[in-house]
Amino acid sequence: MLLSSASRALAAAKPRSPEPFAAAAAVLLRRQLAAGMAAAPASSASAAGNREAFRVAVTNTLERRLFYVPSFKIYGGVAGLYDYGPPGCAVKANVLAFWRQHFVLEEGMLEVDCPCVTPEVVLKASGHVDKFTDLMVKDEKTGTCYRADHLLKDFCKDKLEKDNTLSPEKTAEFNHVLAVLDDLSAEQLGAKIKEYGIVAPDTKNPLSDPYPFNLMFQTSIGPSGLSPGYMRPETAQGIFVNFKDLYYYNGNKLPFAAAQIGQAFRNEARFSQNGVISPRQGLLRVREFTLAEIEHFVDPEDKSHPKFRDVSDLEFLMFPREQQLTGKSAMKLNIGQAVSEGTVNNETLGYFIGRVYLFLTQLGIDKDRLRFRQHLPNEMAHYAADCWDAEIECSFGWIECVGIADRSAYDLRAHSDKSGVALEAHEKFAEPREVEKLVITPSKKELGLAFKGNQRMVLEALEAMSETEALNMKSALESKGEVEFKVCTLGKDVTIKKSMVSINMEKKKEHQRKFTPSVIEPSFGIGRIIYCLFEHCFYQRPGKAEDEQLNVFGFPPLVAPIKCTVFPLVKIEKFEVVAKKISKALTAAGISHIIDMTGNTIGKRYARTDEIGVPLAITVDNTTSVTVRDRDSKDQIRVEVDEVASVVKEVTDGQSTWADIMWRYPAHTASAAEEEEASET
Amino acid sequence: MLLSSASRALAAAKPRSPEPFAAAAAVLLRRQLAAGMAAAPASSASAAGNREAFRVAVTNTLERRLFYVPSFKIYGGVAGLYDYGPPGCAVKANVLAFWRQHFVLEEGMLEVDCPCVTPEVVLKASGHVDKFTDLMVKDEKTGTCYRADHLLKDFCKDKLEKDNTLSPEKTAEFNHVLAVLDDLSAEQLGAKIKEYGIVAPDTKNPLSDPYPFNLMFQTSIGPSGLSPGYMRPETAQGIFVNFKDLYYYNGNKLPFAAAQIGQAFRNEARFSQNGVISPRQGLLRVREFTLAEIEHFVDPEDKSHPKFRDVSDLEFLMFPREQQLTGKSAMKLNIGQAVSEGTVNNETLGYFIGRVYLFLTQLGIDKDRLRFRQHLPNEMAHYAADCWDAEIECSFGWIECVGIADRSAYDLRAHSDKSGVALEAHEKFAEPREVEKLVITPSKKELGLAFKGNQRMVLEALEAMSETEALNMKSALESKGEVEFKVCTLGKDVTIKKSMVSINMEKKKEHQRKFTPSVIEPSFGIGRIIYCLFEHCFYQRPGKAEDEQLNVFGFPPLVAPIKCTVFPLVKIEKFEVVAKKISKALTAAGISHIIDMTGNTIGKRYARTDEIGVPLAITVDNTTSVTVRDRDSKDQIRVEVDEVASVVKEVTDGQSTWADIMWRYPAHTASAAEEEEASET
Repeated sequence: MLLSSASRALAAAKPRSPEPFAAAAAVLLRRQLAAGMAAAPASSASAAGNREAFRVAVTNTLERRLFYVPSFKIYGGVAGLYDYGPPGCAVKANVLAFWRQHFVLEEGMLEVDCPCVTPEVVLKASGHVDKFTDLMVKDEKTGTCYRADHLLKDFCKDKLEKDNTLSPEKTAEFNHVLAVLDDLSAEQLGAKIKEYGIVAPDTKNPLSDPYPFNLMFQTSIGPSGLSPGYMRPETAQGIFVNFKDLYYYNGNKLPFAAAQIGQAFRNEARFSQNGVISPRQGLLRVREFTLAEIEHFVDPEDKSHPKFRDVSDLEFLMFPREQQLTGKSAMKLNIGQAVSEGTVNNETLGYFIGRVYLFLTQLGIDKDRLRFRQHLPNEMAHYAADCWDAEIECSFGWIECVGIADRSAYDLRAHSDKSGVALEAHEKFAEPREVEKLVITPSKKELGLAFKGNQRMVLEALEAMSETEALNMKSALESKGEVEFKVCTLGKDVTIKKSMVSINMEKKKEHQRKFTPSVIEPSFGIGRIIYCLFEHCFYQRPGKAEDEQLNVFGFPPLVAPIKCTVFPLVKIEKFEVVAKKISKALTAAGISHIIDMTGNTIGKRYARTDEIGVPLAITVDNTTSVTVRDRDSKDQIRVEVDEVASVVKEVTDGQSTWADIMWRYPAHTASAAEEEEASET
Repeated sequence: MLLSSASRALAAAKPRSPEPFAAAAAVLLRRQLAAGMAAAPASSASAAGNREAFRVAVTNTLERRLFYVPSFKIYGGVAGLYDYGPPGCAVKANVLAFWRQHFVLEEGMLEVDCPCVTPEVVLKASGHVDKFTDLMVKDEKTGTCYRADHLLKDFCKDKLEKDNTLSPEKTAEFNHVLAVLDDLSAEQLGAKIKEYGIVAPDTKNPLSDPYPFNLMFQTSIGPSGLSPGYMRPETAQGIFVNFKDLYYYNGNKLPFAAAQIGQAFRNEARFSQNGVISPRQGLLRVREFTLAEIEHFVDPEDKSHPKFRDVSDLEFLMFPREQQLTGKSAMKLNIGQAVSEGTVNNETLGYFIGRVYLFLTQLGIDKDRLRFRQHLPNEMAHYAADCWDAEIECSFGWIECVGIADRSAYDLRAHSDKSGVALEAHEKFAEPREVEKLVITPSKKELGLAFKGNQRMVLEALEAMSETEALNMKSALESKGEVEFKVCTLGKDVTIKKSMVSINMEKKKEHQRKFTPSVIEPSFGIGRIIYCLFEHCFYQRPGKAEDEQLNVFGFPPLVAPIKCTVFPLVKIEKFEVVAKKISKALTAAGISHIIDMTGNTIGKRYARTDEIGVPLAITVDNTTSVTVRDRDSKDQIRVEVDEVASVVKEVTDGQSTWADIMWRYPAHTASAAEEEEASET
């Protein structure tokens, strides 16, 4: 479960705080954090301008080189749907392959693959049918829909920014509304919209009362139209409903983790600000996206992790709740220490935070623009033990890319209740344990005499008492001899006397313990990670022409969409033959590459492949040895034709770095002719 | 585009044959082929029984070992939705990875990744909104839906099988209805159902008239409810709508291929026979499935393929149209010859048939149970040049798993027309070419005098004439001096005189040719391929106990879900340390494996891993060298601990076979104790 305010509302679910204004300060702070204000208070106009210019350069390159494009463009596109073109698709495949290696394979997780089409009952149990909603208002004449909270936010912000006549009281009021926005009920939002006279931004028409809009894509399964279904809003539920089989598959042993990669769907309504679609949010705000989710099931009484030592020495930026609430910044923490000091709730959660850190930084995310932010109390579900988001800073601010939550037993219990199938684990004791158990023994005879026809209801109510209730009754009976007792099924209180029930703690032998496992859930928004990766890897360097800037995606070989290019230096047959031979060897080694016979200048070809982040280029300028060039340093070495595929494989598989390779082969000095032409692109 | 009768109806689209009975013989033949009758006429009861027993053994093993299970099982499941559990998910990932290597990487295809949610306009253009339907009838009282053709088929079959009093005329009639079933219109189906008095099988209630049910899952995009959308029924459309960008990405050069792997959705209504859901169709008949599709764009005037020689020597089972229509069997053909003799329409189509053959057989599909069947004329769309299905024989008969169609320019033209965006390619001539072109020059003056206010309409109609119409008019004018001409915009004929228009073929210089590319489309139903692979790899061998049969999935290492297991022979610490060391080396080499410390008997452990198709097992019975065992031969060799991961990698990467390895290492003779225990599982 990750992303979107609705999912957060769902996570925090009921009971909604009756007095949302209590958490106001914390929420305001969270908004500032999200906008990057707290972290960089001097958010000057020029810094914003630079950010904007950088973003334009990145996204123009991404769209021009078909990393991604708006879907169905020839039909005008659909907000929030994007296609990955060839290089984007390759980056995505690489990220997912590495995710499988890093998590599924290294941790021995059980991967599953469930359908997107989901029957209603499953999402009723999970809470999505009832709670996964945004509050909308409708233009009463045109029917255009708006997010109610967005309109109210825009109104307040506008007042604060542009109205110089505001009284200090009004200023405080608008700030307060902004702070509590996320926690307002439909009624409270509607009242504010009425009070401030907010109308439809496009038409100035009056607005309807706020109503909940479910963010799931609804559909119908089968021809009868009688089986409602939804496109899954997350992949997690497919794992929970399979818990029983997976637990059995794992030899009825805990802990174990299941994982799933797949599409998820959210019919987001938040594509507009004042009715204007803002297409530049690109891959960060979409209606269909790839999620990679892990559900790690543990014994709630033992959340230690056997491999925690493997990550416990890692240090990285963390942003605990305390730091956020006291207005401080994120800081470097040692994850081992954070767990031992209780900042992070348990070892398993800490282990995954460490593993996520390694995953993201090995992909190419800049460790200085990555932080783990702990959820504030009002962001978290009432059942959650602890929750941390991996946030990555990009030109849009800090973006939540991975959520790592200890969701306790909530999900398994919900499906257990709804389906009637026990989703639980058991621990066999090495030898039977003696436990104290409460035993309630009503006296049928006495109850019958006292309550006659109501005997059964009273008896059942007594047996259904919780331990606390029973112990309270026991002490009351012992001190006073009788006690008033509410029997719900009768709708009234009855008087229970000492003779009617005996309540005792008794010793019993137990052979096993049954329990609902807790689940630790790392949930990865793959598209968001990829977008941030694009920004972190992008840079420009001067070309030969004045003011010319050449674009480079400095992807690590692991994620580079194409690992290598092969160019004949000039368009002559003997070089083309060698180029084809090398291409064949690269294919056999499973290395994605391009062979470019166009005869463009070498400089132009380098510039083109730098722009899609190809780490290595092979120029065939000889029939026995060739030039290999590194994208970032532009260093060149000479390698034998027969050896070149294995050298490229060594670097792109991560066994060696370019620096390692450099020393083993003679350097090649670029001719003036080659480099000069780089400016002609 | 692949699978399902509705898609076939769509492919064959309009115009529906006005006299469907013409193609009767061919259709009847196709049905027999599908049922395996033509190929194996002696389909005796005992053969069917064996098939059934084999299928039960396979599917029981598959479900018990969680290769796949019905989705949402704890809620009773949903017909046609399946989850891949851990081993199934790994097999699927391996199949897709190999598909990427074999097609995308080796052919330099442009891979894209488009959303499943698709706006209506796209599927309106492709024909799916109007044509992708099944004809249904409803129980008029309960609302239960049935496939109209299924009910009619069941009725006729039942009559033929059970009614001994049938006259020869009636027998012929029922056989005839069965033969033409696929081609009956709604009206014809309805009339037959009425004529035969067919009622709802469950309730005997009367049935509604047949009505078309669209097989796409419908949904709505955005909060307004005003933008209908569908879950894509195939991935191909995402490629077609991106043609312009992809062509540009490819340097405006043909041919090139784009590819996409992704989920597709079909709200199949055919899960019941007489209202009884038949769950055993498993992965063959599903509502959501993974497709892998290639759209190879070529110049319609040149469908040669530069790499055709790489496959032209291949020989495999082919089943050309002629063989089917003359009642012969599939036969071994050389694909080079099949193309040169015109059996296969063109080289590109032939190339892909060859590549598909290599792909499937390298996965582990038995080449003797794989055939390429050419579509009969009435199966093919009117625009299609040629179409071959890769069919794999399993216990359900011959299953269409890959469709390989030359769809000509149909799809690009459809989207071009609907979107108004030209989806075409151009060929620049080395030097300008002189071409003859028709030039129609109406005389405005004469038209104005004759038609006054209608002048513009007549003029536009003249200019819009096709070449044939214009040449006909020219000759009529030359012979008769005037001609009647229908002007649609006026709704009437007018008389055109010789003076009003000049029509001439003129010579012009052209610098390039513009055209809509043809598309060759190989489309892979991944789930069907995987199911057939399960059947082809499954075998049983006797255990030690009497009558005991041990299940084995003989997967090639390429697709095996887990490549290797590591067991300490006995549960002692020094062996466990070695096992962990080996496991670490395997992980580093990217080899999926299981480490089993349970202390079960070695025989039991072998049997368990044979059943999920693990090719190699490492038994740690020493601290310096270990035993490696081959699943199929049960041969064992001894390998040094430090070497074992690289030996396993060699075999599972396909660089060496077990036979290669065997000779390099000393054999290990299994102790009686080890093998005896195999029977205890």
